[in-house]
Amino acid sequence: MAGSSFGNILRITTWGESHGTALGVVVDGCPAGLALEAEDIQAFLDRRKPGQTKISTPRKEADAVEILSGIFEGCTTGTPISMLVRNTSQHSADYSEIANCYRPGHADYTFDAKYGFRDYRGGGRSSGRETIGRVAAGAIASKLLRQFGIELTAYTKSIGPVSVDMSKFDRQAILTTPTCMPDTEASTRAETYLADCMRSYDSAGGVIECVIEGVPAGLGDPVFEKLDANLSKAVMSIGAVKAIEIGDGIEVAVRHGSENNDPFRIQNGHISKTTNHAGGILGGISDGASIILRAYVKPTPSIFSSQETVSRQGENINLSIKGRHDPIIVPRAVVVVESMAAVTIADALLMNASAKLDNLKKIYGR
Amino acid sequence: MAGSSFGNILRITTWGESHGTALGVVVDGCPAGLALEAEDIQAFLDRRKPGQTKISTPRKEADAVEILSGIFEGCTTGTPISMLVRNTSQHSADYSEIANCYRPGHADYTFDAKYGFRDYRGGGRSSGRETIGRVAAGAIASKLLRQFGIELTAYTKSIGPVSVDMSKFDRQAILTTPTCMPDTEASTRAETYLADCMRSYDSAGGVIECVIEGVPAGLGDPVFEKLDANLSKAVMSIGAVKAIEIGDGIEVAVRHGSENNDPFRIQNGHISKTTNHAGGILGGISDGASIILRAYVKPTPSIFSSQETVSRQGENINLSIKGRHDPIIVPRAVVVVESMAAVTIADALLMNASAKLDNLKKIYGR
Amino acid sequence: MAGSSFGNILRITTWGESHGTALGVVVDGCPAGLALEAEDIQAFLDRRKPGQTKISTPRKEADAVEILSGIFEGCTTGTPISMLVRNTSQHSADYSEIANCYRPGHADYTFDAKYGFRDYRGGGRSSGRETIGRVAAGAIASKLLRQFGIELTAYTKSIGPVSVDMSKFDRQAILTTPTCMPDTEASTRAETYLADCMRSYDSAGGVIECVIEGVPAGLGDPVFEKLDANLSKAVMSIGAVKAIEIGDGIEVAVRHGSENNDPFRIQNGHISKTTNHAGGILGGISDGASIILRAYVKPTPSIFSSQETVSRQGENINLSIKGRHDPIIVPRAVVVVESMAAVTIADALLMNASAKLDNLKKIYGR
Amino acid sequence: MAGSSFGNILRITTWGESHGTALGVVVDGCPAGLALEAEDIQAFLDRRKPGQTKISTPRKEADAVEILSGIFEGCTTGTPISMLVRNTSQHSADYSEIANCYRPGHADYTFDAKYGFRDYRGGGRSSGRETIGRVAAGAIASKLLRQFGIELTAYTKSIGPVSVDMSKFDRQAILTTPTCMPDTEASTRAETYLADCMRSYDSAGGVIECVIEGVPAGLGDPVFEKLDANLSKAVMSIGAVKAIEIGDGIEVAVRHGSENNDPFRIQNGHISKTTNHAGGILGGISDGASIILRAYVKPTPSIFSSQETVSRQGENINLSIKGRHDPIIVPRAVVVVESMAAVTIADALLMNASAKLDNLKKIYGR
Repeated sequence: MAGSSFGNILRITTWGESHGTALGVVVDGCPAGLALEAEDIQAFLDRRKPGQTKISTPRKEADAVEILSGIFEGCTTGTPISMLVRNTSQHSADYSEIANCYRPGHADYTFDAKYGFRDYRGGGRSSGRETIGRVAAGAIASKLLRQFGIELTAYTKSIGPVSVDMSKFDRQAILTTPTCMPDTEASTRAETYLADCMRSYDSAGGVIECVIEGVPAGLGDPVFEKLDANLSKAVMSIGAVKAIEIGDGIEVAVRHGSENNDPFRIQNGHISKTTNHAGGILGGISDGASIILRAYVKPTPSIFSSQETVSRQGENINLSIKGRHDPIIVPRAVVVVESMAAVTIADALLMNASAKLDNLKKIYGR
Repeated sequence: MAGSSFGNILRITTWGESHGTALGVVVDGCPAGLALEAEDIQAFLDRRKPGQTKISTPRKEADAVEILSGIFEGCTTGTPISMLVRNTSQHSADYSEIANCYRPGHADYTFDAKYGFRDYRGGGRSSGRETIGRVAAGAIASKLLRQFGIELTAYTKSIGPVSVDMSKFDRQAILTTPTCMPDTEASTRAETYLADCMRSYDSAGGVIECVIEGVPAGLGDPVFEKLDANLSKAVMSIGAVKAIEIGDGIEVAVRHGSENNDPFRIQNGHISKTTNHAGGILGGISDGASIILRAYVKPTPSIFSSQETVSRQGENINLSIKGRHDPIIVPRAVVVVESMAAVTIADALLMNASAKLDNLKKIYGR
Repeated sequence: MAGSSFGNILRITTWGESHGTALGVVVDGCPAGLALEAEDIQAFLDRRKPGQTKISTPRKEADAVEILSGIFEGCTTGTPISMLVRNTSQHSADYSEIANCYRPGHADYTFDAKYGFRDYRGGGRSSGRETIGRVAAGAIASKLLRQFGIELTAYTKSIGPVSVDMSKFDRQAILTTPTCMPDTEASTRAETYLADCMRSYDSAGGVIECVIEGVPAGLGDPVFEKLDANLSKAVMSIGAVKAIEIGDGIEVAVRHGSENNDPFRIQNGHISKTTNHAGGILGGISDGASIILRAYVKPTPSIFSSQETVSRQGENINLSIKGRHDPIIVPRAVVVVESMAAVTIADALLMNASAKLDNLKKIYGR
Repeated sequence: MAGSSFGNILRITTWGESHGTALGVVVDGCPAGLALEAEDIQAFLDRRKPGQTKISTPRKEADAVEILSGIFEGCTTGTPISMLVRNTSQHSADYSEIANCYRPGHADYTFDAKYGFRDYRGGGRSSGRETIGRVAAGAIASKLLRQFGIELTAYTKSIGPVSVDMSKFDRQAILTTPTCMPDTEASTRAETYLADCMRSYDSAGGVIECVIEGVPAGLGDPVFEKLDANLSKAVMSIGAVKAIEIGDGIEVAVRHGSENNDPFRIQNGHISKTTNHAGGILGGISDGASIILRAYVKPTPSIFSSQETVSRQGENINLSIKGRHDPIIVPRAVVVVESMAAVTIADALLMNASAKLDNLKKIYGR
């Protein structure tokens, strides 16, 4: 089954394995006329690059993007934008010993169960490097959305037990702290926590929040193409995400309706809500408030302490993973969550263009 | 945009409004040769029927299904199965006063923002009655899955502050308690809690859990068609669901890798896991353990106490909702969650048939 | 596989068997705000109704449409429009003798080969009655297109050896002659030819042409969603169509480039072509000229003379088909071709709305 | 709109412009376990390479394929296979003069009408080089089909007035004659005809036939995913194709049912047809006979004689095209038609795997 595509009108197709020749994405359906250059993409890719700090893998990956099609004279042409990143820093030898065993928490066993065999080098297609294509696509979607005043901001909300204090929110810190936390104090504590994890050959999880501002009311479609349904699929399809919340999320289950409903009011001549428990989506359609979502990310499954598992041949064994692995996935996944959210919102923006006759009359002049 | 379809090979398309002539679903892609009759569908629909207990709306809806196509001599033919349920108990007059206002927590405003106007009667397309089509489709998917030893069980995990004690799990109670809780004691406490809510003209939320047993390893596709991604879309597309968890869900964010990884072991000659924090899915593909998911459902937005809101004409007003409304959505949504999960798993089962050459050789005899 | 849906943004899903309870269609993705009532649909359905003339089956079928959803206060709401037609005139007994044999030219054998069994009554899903859903959808698409000045006209171009003289083109005759020919003299000759066919227990084929006027330049997408590619799929998916041409069609194979290229010229300040060999489509995108296509329809496979065939049990037998059958499919298929073309063009119109940033700026006001 | 993808389970996405950095394709959904190497792809690409004979453009294009993903240890892994071909021989200067005019018979005007501007170098996305991705995908599909005894053979049936004599059919000649005709005598006459065309600065069209042998009965789905409907879309989406026929094609319009129906007979214990007017497809589903289709290809629109047209600025001008152009598209399009047919049939093979419960029981062991 062709499972590597996402989106309806703006449709992305990613490809590539961790230790193959390259990884990439084809972005089809981007409207013509958007100014776009490699720097727009590279800025996003650089946010997920490893080897930058002591809490990420010491692998050095240039991850330089090459745009192969779809741009002419600095603008998108409406035709597919193909982008690739060469794999340059792969140490396949590191993985030879795991060719014949199933790492706990990884997709080794399930790929074998499905396909009969797998590209075991670095996780193959289930590697975190698969997200390179998503992020390259997200850069385009984000730039498209900015033309319409829509801005996305994703950041680390918590790492293990350390949560950011939102009253100290510092947007700049997202890009400058190694944790991608918008609170430098929390970030320092999180770094200490992660250093402890590494000393005990263990790993940690965390929470990523994404806020999308400037979304006009009316995006998303009823029933199955609800904006929250598509955001959930988009974010849950990122490896290691195990839960997704919209707005107040799990908290709503213990609320009363009188607490959870957001009152509408006329403010400055416009309809807006005085609270935003719903996270900007009602009935699957954006309501004009900021869209807010949170992704819960599991701890890196590759840990250096010894684990019980089985071999491909069906023997119980003990496994000690070697190689170079991040003790936490969260900071590098922040831009992935932002990218998937951007692709989803951009697709909804395009889909909404044909929602009513009035929109079409504006285009076709009747 | 056509947003009323879900699934790839097994594809369902729902239609209908709360107060229109009828609601229904077309189920396309069901394999030929499955024994199926109206009773199979009706048994599922009866589980979501209102008017059965004091904690649900006193509306009486027969919700009798009519199968219009796709069955011949008691078996599915491989062609689309069209089913409909007539609307018979609608009191449209109840809604006339809300034609010109936007109910908090509902999709009234967002539908108007998107389409310019809306069928305001009973919520129109955003009504809970839209789920009739999902449940009718879920009945078929569930029966299909049972042919392969796959069984789904959804139930109410909590209502407001009242949670079930899983050590007292009683499968029969799911169908016999008005709360759909598998613990009769907790159910009684929840009923008391809901009675209090109603007295204060308020409503409550809760949590639905779904366990899927017997899923063979290998279902789901990497990247965007991950089993957990599709389950998340399926469940989040149900109105009122605001969060979705797979396995240990949000808990993974505060775990260490050494705690969260499920060890593989050989048991009775087969590979299985000794724990199931992952909820039966690794890398988006089923791992042979039970699949476990939880949906967090917001309190019914229709409450009888007075609320601040605005009119279509842009005036601040106070609104007191009348009509007949459930104080809680959860019990009636249990079968909806189960149905959407069944459709998702069944679709993955069909998609997996062409995943490897060996499967095709079994069918085409080479 | 779910094969009963067509279209991207405007998406139709048909269902139903010849002798089942009903047949119908769900039209999803129609923009909100289109005035629509049952009479719009019925007018199209009446054009395909049998029993009207001596060259069509004497079956009387009321084929009265019921709209079940998607319309409120006389306008489309943007939600799925579900329509059904009850089967009322089925004589299933007529088909009992063919339950165990494979009619030449029909899908009996291929359905059995695919699904293991079939609904043999009246051809089941492969019956010409399946087109009821297409025509109901086509009525909506046609009305949508008229809002933008796009008009479709399909007619019988030839029946057996009798072709219309286009210099005598009479639009009114399409609706008034039993052949749907726009030339009353040719129609009379065709009727004589068909009477001869019926006397010899035989059947005839013919050609349907469809002209689409007023299509703005720019509809259709490059590569696989070319307008001509989608029109070809749309029309070839109608049972009995065996060839499809765009513009000069098969003639281009014997032309020189200098003859086949259509010169562009400035006329009345606008770019237009001085000839239209291309049939209004260049590179898969409409060029502003009329779109012209032709479908070649095979003779009705149900003939009353004796035919060699085999039984389900694998014996060579002779078969004489009984029942009520049209000696020609063409006149009743005219509105089906027009409908499928309308759905295809309407879908392209909606898809094109998001093709360039300028279009989106007109909608989203930047 | 994302128009660069084709197929349901086996899904191909092509990208790239004539004078961009590269062109390529992502093939997603290919079953795991198929032995595949670059040579398999290159053999197909070499069949469409220009510069090989005097009747094709003197451009020399290496068109060497690079496989970037989806293969491990010589076998497909079930994950997307990304392939690219670098553009190496582009003379963009040749096209600078046409940047501001609309070539008759080309997509220059329609791309501008749709997108507001275009990559004019070598036709950009509407160039014949776009088919590189199709052919690379077709090579994979063909190899997959061969595992199940399905073989495709496409060839030039006619060039201008010169048709092959099928009684002299020589399969080897398809690959050795510059015309791809399976009749060396006809090929010689066609070469003379083409030389005449070139002398008069003109071009020619022709017909490509494709025969698909070994297709089991049962492939294709009823209604819109009919095998002939998908083949029509597949082939009509190739630039320059203006008509498509299945089996006897346009001839059926002048036939009687008694002539056109193919009798079934038991032969060697199996059901087969004694004639094949239907071209191997009944009711949209393969009937076990060879599938036969024909594509009618227009003459190359790029001709060297002077043509009337308009400039982008809206002036009437005369245009004499320069550069390097094939006088005929047909021979190089033969492998493109074969490739698109292969992708379509392979997709139908995969889709059919889940058509009936019996197939699934063979896979899932119940």
